[in-house]
Amino acid sequence: MNILVLGYDGYIGWPLTLELLKDGHIVSGIDNGSRRFRVTECGSQSLTPILTRASRWTYLRDNFDKVHLLIDNNISHMSEQLKYIFENYSIDVIFHLAEQPSAPWSMANFHRANKTQIENVSGTLALLWAMKEACPKAHLIKIGTMGEYGTPNCDIPEGRIEEGPMAGLLFPRTAGSFYHLSKVHDTHNIEFACRNWGLRSTDIMQGVVFGLNETDNDAELTRFDYDEYFGTVINRFCVQAIIGHPLTVYGYGGQTRGFIPLRDSIKCLKIAMDNPPVKGEYRTFNQFESIHTINELAYMVRDALHTLNMPYRIDHIPNPRKESEDHYYNPRHLGLAKFGYSPSISIHRDIYELIKKILPYKDRVIKEVIMPKTTWK
Amino acid sequence: MNILVLGYDGYIGWPLTLELLKDGHIVSGIDNGSRRFRVTECGSQSLTPILTRASRWTYLRDNFDKVHLLIDNNISHMSEQLKYIFENYSIDVIFHLAEQPSAPWSMANFHRANKTQIENVSGTLALLWAMKEACPKAHLIKIGTMGEYGTPNCDIPEGRIEEGPMAGLLFPRTAGSFYHLSKVHDTHNIEFACRNWGLRSTDIMQGVVFGLNETDNDAELTRFDYDEYFGTVINRFCVQAIIGHPLTVYGYGGQTRGFIPLRDSIKCLKIAMDNPPVKGEYRTFNQFESIHTINELAYMVRDALHTLNMPYRIDHIPNPRKESEDHYYNPRHLGLAKFGYSPSISIHRDIYELIKKILPYKDRVIKEVIMPKTTWK
Repeated sequence: MNILVLGYDGYIGWPLTLELLKDGHIVSGIDNGSRRFRVTECGSQSLTPILTRASRWTYLRDNFDKVHLLIDNNISHMSEQLKYIFENYSIDVIFHLAEQPSAPWSMANFHRANKTQIENVSGTLALLWAMKEACPKAHLIKIGTMGEYGTPNCDIPEGRIEEGPMAGLLFPRTAGSFYHLSKVHDTHNIEFACRNWGLRSTDIMQGVVFGLNETDNDAELTRFDYDEYFGTVINRFCVQAIIGHPLTVYGYGGQTRGFIPLRDSIKCLKIAMDNPPVKGEYRTFNQFESIHTINELAYMVRDALHTLNMPYRIDHIPNPRKESEDHYYNPRHLGLAKFGYSPSISIHRDIYELIKKILPYKDRVIKEVIMPKTTWK
Repeated sequence: MNILVLGYDGYIGWPLTLELLKDGHIVSGIDNGSRRFRVTECGSQSLTPILTRASRWTYLRDNFDKVHLLIDNNISHMSEQLKYIFENYSIDVIFHLAEQPSAPWSMANFHRANKTQIENVSGTLALLWAMKEACPKAHLIKIGTMGEYGTPNCDIPEGRIEEGPMAGLLFPRTAGSFYHLSKVHDTHNIEFACRNWGLRSTDIMQGVVFGLNETDNDAELTRFDYDEYFGTVINRFCVQAIIGHPLTVYGYGGQTRGFIPLRDSIKCLKIAMDNPPVKGEYRTFNQFESIHTINELAYMVRDALHTLNMPYRIDHIPNPRKESEDHYYNPRHLGLAKFGYSPSISIHRDIYELIKKILPYKDRVIKEVIMPKTTWK
């Protein structure tokens, strides 16, 4: 298939691009490099020594003959160019991962809240209009977040209300940051584009992703962030673990979320691609492997450290976020299972392997970025 | 009270500002003049010969001693200035009417869709952050639209789901244009700001407003638009009526909406102000007088024309919008009634009076802007 990956240089985008090329697809990519820039700006760097953007370009060109286009730009400024690409490269599938992905970053100040919402909403709008005008049959696969739903005191269906007089309406969103809200806005805009223009889309409500891509080739390693902004919780814990820093649980630690290893995230994205929705369909998948409290995750890291004969300590620190620390949480996730998704290995095992895998990089850790500075209140 | 009106130069903003001043409040206003600019840009003008912005400034300064500030700017560029104003003028109430208000304008092309969402979302975000930092106790009264809900096949509560396991969650929004979606985005952002920061807000889901403000003083007349973008349906029908143009019903005409005369809209906004929500409360009012199909409105205009001994004809033209033309519609609107709102006079009578009132301006009508050119599909 002919595929466009928006955000191909990112944490998920890079290994996804590589897998699609290895599977024999024709791949084009767009990325504005903002993730690299912003991680640097907050004083951090990827734990893994990843290639520069220029070297990644060269690597792709040298190793795959089906790389079509690699563009360095912001999709929200590309409404006309996107149309040109769609018209001239007959794109079948668009993976949209080109968004500002950090909740704490979006809560730091007005400037960042605004930048997050404007970039994310505007980029998706540019894409939707270009699709409508130049490739209305393509399949848009968009990364949203389980955080769009928040933690309501009821079961969470996949995207829409399933029964009663409101059946078929979008399940209400109660997001917990301006970043999560930007994804809620995208959800509404995409649902409308499908309903009004007959586009088709899979909107992925993704759990928290963790881990590294599996490769023996250093050129193919994806980035791995552990700072308070761009590091997700398991990745942060594992970095704390390898440098002997206490695991810092925010507050009580009863916060419950869905989690998925990077390997499975990519597996699921490919399942969505291989089983497209019909014209006009706006489809939602809740994409996660399993549900855990933050405390459970800390215990799993502790168990791994115990097995590895490494020191460990768990500290509960004041929660910088405003969130329930003990709550009901029961989201459904049957959509992907129906198309064949089952978890590769247990999250316990995954965490153990991850710690072993990142141990060689422990001298690259910048300790100053580990503790949170941004509060929600 | 010390009041800030955002969008004070607009259709509702101008008469609201005058009334608040006459009631003895201290009023400041901000407006970037975009409504005037955009109506001109689409080849139209206000039916009523309104004062220029400069003359309105002079008029306010000459006639009221409690006008504090009148600023010509875009609130989304004013995050720091807003804080300064909030800190130094101890604002109690903010009316936020400074948004791009046209659905067809937002559907014309990517540029306008994007501009609508960016301006509206970004302006509201700037306001929320400034409130959080400089006047967290002020009461934000924001104009949303009944169109946020769309036309679901079930009863529509006031903002939140009332019963069952989802009770308390926002009632799902199914908006029908990028403009309406921009208001949905605002709704989510404001609800979050109340929940997370303890701000308080009344979010008005307003029906379609029509009519003129009641004044014998030409300087106080508000604008009156009838073009396809900025003219609402009753106002458009009445302008068609006075120049002998057929009333153009979009499609079958069974589309059902809530309507409210401008006089009552202002009355309701003042009721909301006089009965503020508590700290941290995000409150929704569904603000309309009564519910009608487009056909019923056309018949009311026809009846008025018959009484006035003027010619009439109703034409059904192809619907430029994508919307149900015959559907269930049952929104509740008890919130404002509880605080004392009841309609001033019947909508029948209002339409009759409106036609008589605008008749003297019939030579100012620009016929070219009456028929719609923008389609939704």
